[in-house]
Amino acid sequence: MEREDLARELAIQTDSKIVLFVIDGLGGLPQNGRTELETAATPNLDRLAAKACCGVTDPVAMGITPGSGPAHLALFGYDPLVHQLGRGILEALGSDVEVRQGDLVARGNFATLKDGVIADRRAGRIPTSECERICAKINAARANVSNPEITLFPGKEHRFVARFRTVGLSDALTDADPQKDGKPRIPAVAENAASQKAAGLVNAFLDEIIAILKDEPAANAALLRGFSVQPTIPAMSDLFKLNPAAIANYPMYKGLARLIGMRTYKVGPEPAELFDILEAHWPEHDFFYVHFKKTDAAGEDGNFEAKVRAIEEADRFIPRIEALKPDVLVVTADHSTPALMHGHSFHPNPFLLAAATAMPDDVAAFSERGCARGYFGRFPSLSAMPLMLGHAGKLKKFGA
Amino acid sequence: MEREDLARELAIQTDSKIVLFVIDGLGGLPQNGRTELETAATPNLDRLAAKACCGVTDPVAMGITPGSGPAHLALFGYDPLVHQLGRGILEALGSDVEVRQGDLVARGNFATLKDGVIADRRAGRIPTSECERICAKINAARANVSNPEITLFPGKEHRFVARFRTVGLSDALTDADPQKDGKPRIPAVAENAASQKAAGLVNAFLDEIIAILKDEPAANAALLRGFSVQPTIPAMSDLFKLNPAAIANYPMYKGLARLIGMRTYKVGPEPAELFDILEAHWPEHDFFYVHFKKTDAAGEDGNFEAKVRAIEEADRFIPRIEALKPDVLVVTADHSTPALMHGHSFHPNPFLLAAATAMPDDVAAFSERGCARGYFGRFPSLSAMPLMLGHAGKLKKFGA
Repeated sequence: MEREDLARELAIQTDSKIVLFVIDGLGGLPQNGRTELETAATPNLDRLAAKACCGVTDPVAMGITPGSGPAHLALFGYDPLVHQLGRGILEALGSDVEVRQGDLVARGNFATLKDGVIADRRAGRIPTSECERICAKINAARANVSNPEITLFPGKEHRFVARFRTVGLSDALTDADPQKDGKPRIPAVAENAASQKAAGLVNAFLDEIIAILKDEPAANAALLRGFSVQPTIPAMSDLFKLNPAAIANYPMYKGLARLIGMRTYKVGPEPAELFDILEAHWPEHDFFYVHFKKTDAAGEDGNFEAKVRAIEEADRFIPRIEALKPDVLVVTADHSTPALMHGHSFHPNPFLLAAATAMPDDVAAFSERGCARGYFGRFPSLSAMPLMLGHAGKLKKFGA
Repeated sequence: MEREDLARELAIQTDSKIVLFVIDGLGGLPQNGRTELETAATPNLDRLAAKACCGVTDPVAMGITPGSGPAHLALFGYDPLVHQLGRGILEALGSDVEVRQGDLVARGNFATLKDGVIADRRAGRIPTSECERICAKINAARANVSNPEITLFPGKEHRFVARFRTVGLSDALTDADPQKDGKPRIPAVAENAASQKAAGLVNAFLDEIIAILKDEPAANAALLRGFSVQPTIPAMSDLFKLNPAAIANYPMYKGLARLIGMRTYKVGPEPAELFDILEAHWPEHDFFYVHFKKTDAAGEDGNFEAKVRAIEEADRFIPRIEALKPDVLVVTADHSTPALMHGHSFHPNPFLLAAATAMPDDVAAFSERGCARGYFGRFPSLSAMPLMLGHAGKLKKFGA
């Protein structure tokens, strides 16, 4: 047995309840000596830290900057190196495209084809409204074709997601995208016998698009890349005997949660609605993943002050979680997003676990550097799930 | 994908520059309450530590004392359990013997053969000058034989390195060395079909040596052990997209660096020359390994005071590195060499990483016990390379 399979072997169903509150991109770097989290006034998180057990987590490995997909999978107890998600499936999840077992999805660009070469891979960055019109035009032209059922879902500007819905498609296909302007179109090539059928469908569809778009001035062709089928990931209910709920607003996080069998709920854009849903469905589940996005967005924007305010906003919701008396409450992040770096980073995440069974340490303020001195020390995010389950009394003893 | 392959998958070439300053055998143990490093006055390292991110590293695993080869390989991002170097190749590297792909090398002893048994495996520890004379005698006797080309390189006292230069030799050979005095000579035995040819060559050469040395009073036979071919290790340029330079004086470290494709430079015996070379070649590379040896030598001698002075000497060169403004500066050791133990030890190494993207921690003095409270915590030396690359912006994001 692998070490990471232990929690799966030992998990039992109990009535205890776990809340995993993910403050996206929480960790940062100092500007004028203090990080965003150290700058923010977080009386509730500090009070929680004072009685909780703290540490810092590496989402994938030291020095490695993770995307949101692998960073979340690790927190949910799935090794992100084992469960690698294709770009197409992540794009589909992020675009709220429903993906079923058997579907093949890909990221698409509209492009400008001129004199037999792709003159512009982004079709002059057509407006999003144009992309919506063109996707609708193609979907309408194929409305009476049901096998395969192919649907385009518009994204921002020239981007879209293509979904091929028919049985037996493999995603072992090369990109149908020359990657550079001024090159001829290239077909998707089957990487093995099982993907021959998919290659044929994809290439025929790309030809069909050219016929449908022949009168368009800019977007008169399409490129597809990152072909992915729905990955087969075991459900959290099977692995950890949990009945989990995902309370998140952004499509990517909801889609990822659905992939591993979490129940998702419709949540409005206001963060307070996360906690309305949490309270409303408290009796129904034993594991709640609550996702707070604003911190990451502010970090990506490089806006230190906005990130400080977002952290303070997250802090104010802590009492609403505590009032529900979860047996285990973890507050952490998927990855760090320092405003200084304008993006995800490789820095570890502050991690706090409050439970009657937790060892209180002397970390009295919730911060990156405070948590690093906590009793948990520095550990992989992949250990978060066994820690939550263990502290909640949801793991049997290993051996006798 | 294995976790240790991540940095290889994600590495990109950039203009940022990394300096890895290895103070060999830096870590020690207290005598009168303080370690060598804690005793030494190190104002520059302390100043650097105060703004850097610190930790301690285990070269191979907790409790395991590494040789210089595996300890350095780990720092360079190569798993020392995967890339095990034969004794023969390390001896050859340490003796500045050029080893090419296809060469077979071995460690040798001159010995005294009497009445059909090896009476003395060290030929009475003949002086080094005698060893040089005898190697020259054997090389001269074989001067007109070019296939195989066999060359002996004298070492200290009775020791030498033998190099067999011909195509198709395997190193799957048992030692041609009875290991104890008073036993008969034993031949090298081929461990598989591929090494039959090598066994034949080696054993014929050992007989030839006895004929050449028949009139020598002490050194009248040779023993060979640790047969090794040049290991096939991928180059740092391939793995990490680096253009690396090794600035080291001792042959073993230069040889090891060449094995993984680092450019080496001729460096004189004075430590200041390391930094002359660093400055002279600063524009040409993006990764610089600088090796300071005196600390280890003092530790091996069990000379606490000499080790303190060597550490203080290393400290005085820090400003010369800083003046070059590397994007990432790491100061650490390959392994510990406590004067108390007169040799390498299993203790972890103090580690310091200074970069604009590093999280400063509250470690204000560079020491073994200070670094253990640093933000990096305790981690494998193998993570040093991903950390250096990550902080230097040389790794793409993992997943989306």
